[in-house]
Amino acid sequence: MGRWEPNARGRLEQAALELYVERGYEQTTVAEIAKRAGLTERTFFRHFADKREVLFWGSGTVRDHLVNAVAAAPDSAAPIDAIAGAIESVDVVFQERYESARRRQTVIAANAELRERELIKLASLSAALADTLRKRGVPDPAASLAAEAGIAVFKIAFERWISGPGEPDFSQIVRESFDELKAVTAGG
Amino acid sequence: MGRWEPNARGRLEQAALELYVERGYEQTTVAEIAKRAGLTERTFFRHFADKREVLFWGSGTVRDHLVNAVAAAPDSAAPIDAIAGAIESVDVVFQERYESARRRQTVIAANAELRERELIKLASLSAALADTLRKRGVPDPAASLAAEAGIAVFKIAFERWISGPGEPDFSQIVRESFDELKAVTAGG
Repeated sequence: MGRWEPNARGRLEQAALELYVERGYEQTTVAEIAKRAGLTERTFFRHFADKREVLFWGSGTVRDHLVNAVAAAPDSAAPIDAIAGAIESVDVVFQERYESARRRQTVIAANAELRERELIKLASLSAALADTLRKRGVPDPAASLAAEAGIAVFKIAFERWISGPGEPDFSQIVRESFDELKAVTAGG
Repeated sequence: MGRWEPNARGRLEQAALELYVERGYEQTTVAEIAKRAGLTERTFFRHFADKREVLFWGSGTVRDHLVNAVAAAPDSAAPIDAIAGAIESVDVVFQERYESARRRQTVIAANAELRERELIKLASLSAALADTLRKRGVPDPAASLAAEAGIAVFKIAFERWISGPGEPDFSQIVRESFDELKAVTAGG
């Protein structure tokens, strides 16, 4: 792997997202993505298994980040606060990726199969967080409830973030959304 | 449609669930289901579009019940209480269906495609509830948060219900789970 590799990956991703938005995900071929990026199909397949993976490779990064952050929360942190702190800190992963995130969401919203894939990723994220809480000694159903509620907030905060005017502060939206969740579940 | 129809439907469902548990969902054919029920394939297809629909026809009933119950909640009810009351009352739909619900869950848990279908049904249920809350004048993100949190509780309460010893009281489990959610989100 040469020094140019990370750049190739980024160029391929950007080319793919542009094409998915312009022509539709179904209509875009790997050959077209490679051409737009000025690279070969062979190079595309060194970075991504297929054209769908361009949209979902980041899920693994987000998941690892969240699981590590929950595991590293202070012992004294309440489960929901461990989850909230982890989700707030995801903005590190999203850094410089606002335009990509918006394009990605447009593409996923337009395609039923991709929406299903996204739901599956979120469900597996919730399961991973519940598991991490259990390892911290949080019993069920508290572990599952905190994880599910956290993922619900994550989803809603993410949608607010990418549909906001300008580029709003993700961490701030997450904090506000957790406050709203607290108010909502309290029956306020 | 003769007087025997509802009975045929019930027999087909029971035969299908038995076979799915005994032999696996993938391995079971419509011909075998019809045979076990003592009916014809033609009769099967009068009741169900395919073998998957035997597992998911009830989702529509649950959804209609929940949407109607939320719409009919008193104007003064807080969004989360409207949702909680609706989910508690789902036990009417589950009446006499405990064994079927357990078998159904075993089958779904064993098959990735069915688990995905179930996630999609739950997501569409959450969207329908958020929509019903918006029609009651609840703004976003409160509407989405209450709906998502409610569906999370529904899922977790349902799992507790079918894995409990004996046949526990579904409404009671739902009430306890909403109380736990409240405690969890409060950071308790």
